[in-house]
Amino acid sequence: MVNFTHLDKNSRPKIVDISDKDNTLRVAVASGKIVMDKKAFDMVVSQQTKKGPVLQTAVIAALQGAKSTSTLIPMCHPLLLTSVECDIVELSSDFGFELEVTVKLTGKTGVEMEALTGVSIGLLTIYDMVKSLDKSMTIKEIKLKSKTGGKSGDFRR
Amino acid sequence: MVNFTHLDKNSRPKIVDISDKDNTLRVAVASGKIVMDKKAFDMVVSQQTKKGPVLQTAVIAALQGAKSTSTLIPMCHPLLLTSVECDIVELSSDFGFELEVTVKLTGKTGVEMEALTGVSIGLLTIYDMVKSLDKSMTIKEIKLKSKTGGKSGDFRR
Amino acid sequence: MVNFTHLDKNSRPKIVDISDKDNTLRVAVASGKIVMDKKAFDMVVSQQTKKGPVLQTAVIAALQGAKSTSTLIPMCHPLLLTSVECDIVELSSDFGFELEVTVKLTGKTGVEMEALTGVSIGLLTIYDMVKSLDKSMTIKEIKLKSKTGGKSGDFRR
Amino acid sequence: MVNFTHLDKNSRPKIVDISDKDNTLRVAVASGKIVMDKKAFDMVVSQQTKKGPVLQTAVIAALQGAKSTSTLIPMCHPLLLTSVECDIVELSSDFGFELEVTVKLTGKTGVEMEALTGVSIGLLTIYDMVKSLDKSMTIKEIKLKSKTGGKSGDFRR
Amino acid sequence: MVNFTHLDKNSRPKIVDISDKDNTLRVAVASGKIVMDKKAFDMVVSQQTKKGPVLQTAVIAALQGAKSTSTLIPMCHPLLLTSVECDIVELSSDFGFELEVTVKLTGKTGVEMEALTGVSIGLLTIYDMVKSLDKSMTIKEIKLKSKTGGKSGDFRR
Amino acid sequence: MVNFTHLDKNSRPKIVDISDKDNTLRVAVASGKIVMDKKAFDMVVSQQTKKGPVLQTAVIAALQGAKSTSTLIPMCHPLLLTSVECDIVELSSDFGFELEVTVKLTGKTGVEMEALTGVSIGLLTIYDMVKSLDKSMTIKEIKLKSKTGGKSGDFRR
Repeated sequence: MVNFTHLDKNSRPKIVDISDKDNTLRVAVASGKIVMDKKAFDMVVSQQTKKGPVLQTAVIAALQGAKSTSTLIPMCHPLLLTSVECDIVELSSDFGFELEVTVKLTGKTGVEMEALTGVSIGLLTIYDMVKSLDKSMTIKEIKLKSKTGGKSGDFRR
Repeated sequence: MVNFTHLDKNSRPKIVDISDKDNTLRVAVASGKIVMDKKAFDMVVSQQTKKGPVLQTAVIAALQGAKSTSTLIPMCHPLLLTSVECDIVELSSDFGFELEVTVKLTGKTGVEMEALTGVSIGLLTIYDMVKSLDKSMTIKEIKLKSKTGGKSGDFRR
Repeated sequence: MVNFTHLDKNSRPKIVDISDKDNTLRVAVASGKIVMDKKAFDMVVSQQTKKGPVLQTAVIAALQGAKSTSTLIPMCHPLLLTSVECDIVELSSDFGFELEVTVKLTGKTGVEMEALTGVSIGLLTIYDMVKSLDKSMTIKEIKLKSKTGGKSGDFRR
Repeated sequence: MVNFTHLDKNSRPKIVDISDKDNTLRVAVASGKIVMDKKAFDMVVSQQTKKGPVLQTAVIAALQGAKSTSTLIPMCHPLLLTSVECDIVELSSDFGFELEVTVKLTGKTGVEMEALTGVSIGLLTIYDMVKSLDKSMTIKEIKLKSKTGGKSGDFRR
Repeated sequence: MVNFTHLDKNSRPKIVDISDKDNTLRVAVASGKIVMDKKAFDMVVSQQTKKGPVLQTAVIAALQGAKSTSTLIPMCHPLLLTSVECDIVELSSDFGFELEVTVKLTGKTGVEMEALTGVSIGLLTIYDMVKSLDKSMTIKEIKLKSKTGGKSGDFRR
Repeated sequence: MVNFTHLDKNSRPKIVDISDKDNTLRVAVASGKIVMDKKAFDMVVSQQTKKGPVLQTAVIAALQGAKSTSTLIPMCHPLLLTSVECDIVELSSDFGFELEVTVKLTGKTGVEMEALTGVSIGLLTIYDMVKSLDKSMTIKEIKLKSKTGGKSGDFRR
């Protein structure tokens, strides 16, 4: 029978027991997008060619967000992330940006949530820094792109 | 000339000066969705008819997430939120859920980011609790629905 | 009909709306005890006559704990505490200590939880610093002693 | 001569050196109680038979509290908890609840403080959610029930 | 008789009572420096002419650091900062940088500690990002430059 | 060619990959000073001969500060510190104090930033507790004294 790993037999939430799992290298890649109006997009891009502080700020927030996952998501284990990297791609035809976050760890459980949380916080930071120009931006397509390592097998979208 | 309020004249990020703004009632409503496969959706829904801990946990994480906005988003001011409420709607035809977060404050700046951060953290929590069933879930359409109060005027999508 | 203020009409937890409440001076006093074996008690007390670091450390942890209440207790509002003070009384006949924490605020809601959280964290800190001597210590009688200010009236145990 | 492990030779608090200790499986179980008046107790229990959000919220707060131990208790080491589980028992004759928290870790030091902190934060959360009905609730008997693993030997109350 | 405001009559640390103080505009400016070897300095500066991420990252960390003051400094009150701005000056002859942080608030107590903490965290961030090039950097001259507002009068170094 | 380890090929900040590094014992010692006027210095010292709470409080804040390094410094990895110790020396001729912090870890990267952050937060705490007596205090000479362990070799100033 299929079941949620985060709920014990009395349906109480719990942080699942990973004590017996092996310390192996685990990598997760997640991504998401934010789209805005043309004027806002042009402002961010031209700013970027000078000093790019909107996107740089978003990258730093994403790194910090990935590290704070276990304080934000109730059932997440504290983990010793060994690498967090971000990549941002301009979506010129959509007037937006795609943020990709890659997280690594040698540990007992995967880092999908850390990658997804990094993406979410990074995109929210872009929203925050651009919202004086466009309040109708949308954050979309936050998803896991791939996951390797661990007993449950690899995942690739 | 239009400009980013978060960048000073040297293009350095800053937390914008709101010292002279009035303390008025401000309300923001944001929402977002998570979609999953049918099996996972049915599990969450049937679980909910018993004790609903996935969605209850997501609500609590959303409330906590809204409160931690200023530590997550670099340019956000610390704020004294006076109300945070969540609503979750089942999206039966999409196999998903829509989470709406409403935040209120009597203060000097708006609470859009708090509502959007609450939505993001709540949806990530659903992802976390369901990911053993479906790793290809997508978080989407995170957006501001409305905003009232403050000098810049009301916004309604 | 009596009801929980923290649950909305769909029984979802929420942070209750205090937007319309007045900013008034509110004071809460809470206390709690820790009891231990005679040997441990004597060690703490004699240490105190020199530099007292167990109890000083507990006081500092209690102050910090009171300030972190809204990140620890899901339904608590962020609040601007204007005063936190601690008092510790030796309970010579019980081999223990009573910690009392007084919290003040000029704001829209009471500070009972802040006082109770300060007491709890302070007592846990004593436990932590003494546990190498006695693992069977007990923390007990954590309670609200008094509360003044606010519309719901004063409370005195 | 017996001594506090948390105080160095100049009686300054320190985080004790565990660099040379082995990474072994360590388990700690702690518990505590909250008692209230009959009306409040009946409200929590009947609510629980519907959706139980008071106790579910307390469980989530307890899990989060256990994870935040090293930021709350000054001398505690940061630790990679590998499991946190809660159990709540109704105390019908006392009009209260007993919360038990079990924490596991494969690491260099024990998790007693994490279990005790989880219990404390969980009980404070019940207090917070019920205090509109009864302000004279008492939190009591917070104690370590058992501890296994590590060089100092097992403990069972 | 002169006395410490942070110690009560039993010499216990406390968070001093500011309940009765007025909400007035308060501004504090603090600064500090980091000096390094010529090679490291040139690397930071030339990097800055391209995208400047060392200094941009330091600015963001300084803003975040200023906001986290009350969780870091035990006797500091939680405060609603209304503005945080940074300025960085190249010290070409010293091979270093001066970071200045200005903090504003309309509230009951001053923001000196917030400005000083912002400076400290910003300079530590520069150290962190440059330490692969030069481990013998020194952080120095962290000081309050000015303070205005509040009953105790203005201060200017 | 020399390069910053914290910047990826597109000059975006990242948390550098330490996945493949060995878990070895690493120790870092950092120090810094605060100087004040004679009156303030005498107050701290004489207070210390009684209960010394200024310096005790600074030590506790330094320990807590060292543990919060990875949340404060954007590119720092979360780490499992296995020991944090402080030493404070009176600088009688300078009217000041030197705070030294020693941090240990068995892990994949060094703990210089943790030692330096502990020093900074400890000195800021002294500033905070003494600032009612002297606002012109200066924090200075924050530096790494030594570092052992890890592949990059030992460092001794």
